[in-house]
Amino acid sequence: MQPIPTFHDIRHAAERIRAHAHRTPVLTCDSLNRMAGAQLFFKCENFQKAGAFKFRGACNTLFSLSKAELRGGVATHSSGNHAAALALAARLRGTRAFIVMPQDAPKVKIAAVAGYGGEITFCQPTLEARETTLAEVVRETGATFVHPYNDPRVIAGQGTATLELLHEIPDLDVVLAPVGGGGLLSGTAIAAAGMSPKIKVIAVEPANADDAFRSFRAGKRIPVEHPDTIADGLRTSLGELTFAIIMGSVHDIVTVSEEAIVAAMRHVWERMKIIIEPSSAVPVAALLENKLAVSGKRVGVILSGGNVELSKLPF
Amino acid sequence: MQPIPTFHDIRHAAERIRAHAHRTPVLTCDSLNRMAGAQLFFKCENFQKAGAFKFRGACNTLFSLSKAELRGGVATHSSGNHAAALALAARLRGTRAFIVMPQDAPKVKIAAVAGYGGEITFCQPTLEARETTLAEVVRETGATFVHPYNDPRVIAGQGTATLELLHEIPDLDVVLAPVGGGGLLSGTAIAAAGMSPKIKVIAVEPANADDAFRSFRAGKRIPVEHPDTIADGLRTSLGELTFAIIMGSVHDIVTVSEEAIVAAMRHVWERMKIIIEPSSAVPVAALLENKLAVSGKRVGVILSGGNVELSKLPF
Repeated sequence: MQPIPTFHDIRHAAERIRAHAHRTPVLTCDSLNRMAGAQLFFKCENFQKAGAFKFRGACNTLFSLSKAELRGGVATHSSGNHAAALALAARLRGTRAFIVMPQDAPKVKIAAVAGYGGEITFCQPTLEARETTLAEVVRETGATFVHPYNDPRVIAGQGTATLELLHEIPDLDVVLAPVGGGGLLSGTAIAAAGMSPKIKVIAVEPANADDAFRSFRAGKRIPVEHPDTIADGLRTSLGELTFAIIMGSVHDIVTVSEEAIVAAMRHVWERMKIIIEPSSAVPVAALLENKLAVSGKRVGVILSGGNVELSKLPF
Repeated sequence: MQPIPTFHDIRHAAERIRAHAHRTPVLTCDSLNRMAGAQLFFKCENFQKAGAFKFRGACNTLFSLSKAELRGGVATHSSGNHAAALALAARLRGTRAFIVMPQDAPKVKIAAVAGYGGEITFCQPTLEARETTLAEVVRETGATFVHPYNDPRVIAGQGTATLELLHEIPDLDVVLAPVGGGGLLSGTAIAAAGMSPKIKVIAVEPANADDAFRSFRAGKRIPVEHPDTIADGLRTSLGELTFAIIMGSVHDIVTVSEEAIVAAMRHVWERMKIIIEPSSAVPVAALLENKLAVSGKRVGVILSGGNVELSKLPF
């Protein structure tokens, strides 16, 4: 297994990405506070470059790689935010990004990757086809594969969001993050533990894609295949590395229904006037459904991204 | 005619509302800068209390009124943001707000007014019915009428948005604001002139509701009846007071098409990840359509509000 990144690595990542990534704002909302019965501090990664926290990990990785490693560019397979983030980070680093995308990926995501200069290879929409095609691309180009979450540099990058949040609002009782592959959650947990041992980190997952919930309780990885959730950023299962980190430093994982996710997304849009994608609404859903014992507490919430197809809204 | 408010009045208004209104953030967006060929600074009144700049004017007025004037509460007729803003400001001031609304007003607007404790009287959806019903309500309750824009206290309140913008970003070349009844535009022009005589104030109006554009060119008020525009906050015509101010201190007024408004709204949602209502998109539309000679300039843009019915989006 790869090494578990440390708090030190997250601090280094923060320095490394400072000139490239946005320091996103922390917003509050009285009416959501009232609904949740807690004081909420929203770290707005929907305002991050390329529209999601993913840019932090991609950027940290690109600026960690040696010139030799960058010679053939970087590559990944992704239908989502990691692809756009990697393409943008590669452009900023002056190298090429080869992105394998399923041919049924949303047009808006394809356009984003292409807009950042990513070189796209389409494949059949199965995990096997994605992995095979990626292997071919890597063989042909000599590109360095950058995994979307199961990589210590990526995890350290994602942790910088929580580092910034806790520098701005130091006295939080709890930090909430959504969990898919576990890169954001792992970085969040390491950053929070490094800032203060008192802060609890709780993950929230769609009940329809609950591999992290089950794995956490069973103490072993139980991947879920083809989960059906509107939270498109959270359909992946934990990796070996992220599972190990989460077992060691996350306090709890709870799940929420699809209806609760849509309702929470709508509340954030209506009350906060900001656009978040369904994955970002997952922790908010747990708050609004009172799934967490946070009454009267100060709670940080990582709003992971804001990339949605406006013509396909669930409301 | 009522007295024209001064820069001094706007500074007083800023002090008066400080404890109640949000100091809204100023956001920037690289991709919109590129599209407009200028450096844009967005004053985000969509994040203001009650979701629009209207709260500034309502709040300044409520906290300017004497106890005697407040005894019977305040009243207005409005189907839009002024109604919610007045209801909230009245609640904060500890008095009642009587709101006359057309019976076909959007449910979300009715719910907002009721949610802030406004006491609603419904009427037929004509201007005559609204005025007659308001007169009855005022007679019965002894409430003080607060006009949505043709009032110096309201105008001074609206001007505080530009005061804040220019305190934060002093060296702007141009400030853009949408124009409907002209309250926001009047306050913007007075605030900008007071801060620096070099700043140009340009108003943008839907071509489908272009009374301000025509009046400005003709040098006399030419109200438009029943204009049909998606920018629901800009369907009103200039008042006597706002017309006089605009003639004296606005540099130009340009118009934009409905298609350009919808496209601009969509761009802001997609790129900035913030929710703005169609009226807010009107100045952005002028920028994206190159209707303004602002190439390379530093341009402030007042994003007036963020109240939209999510189930009735134009895209």
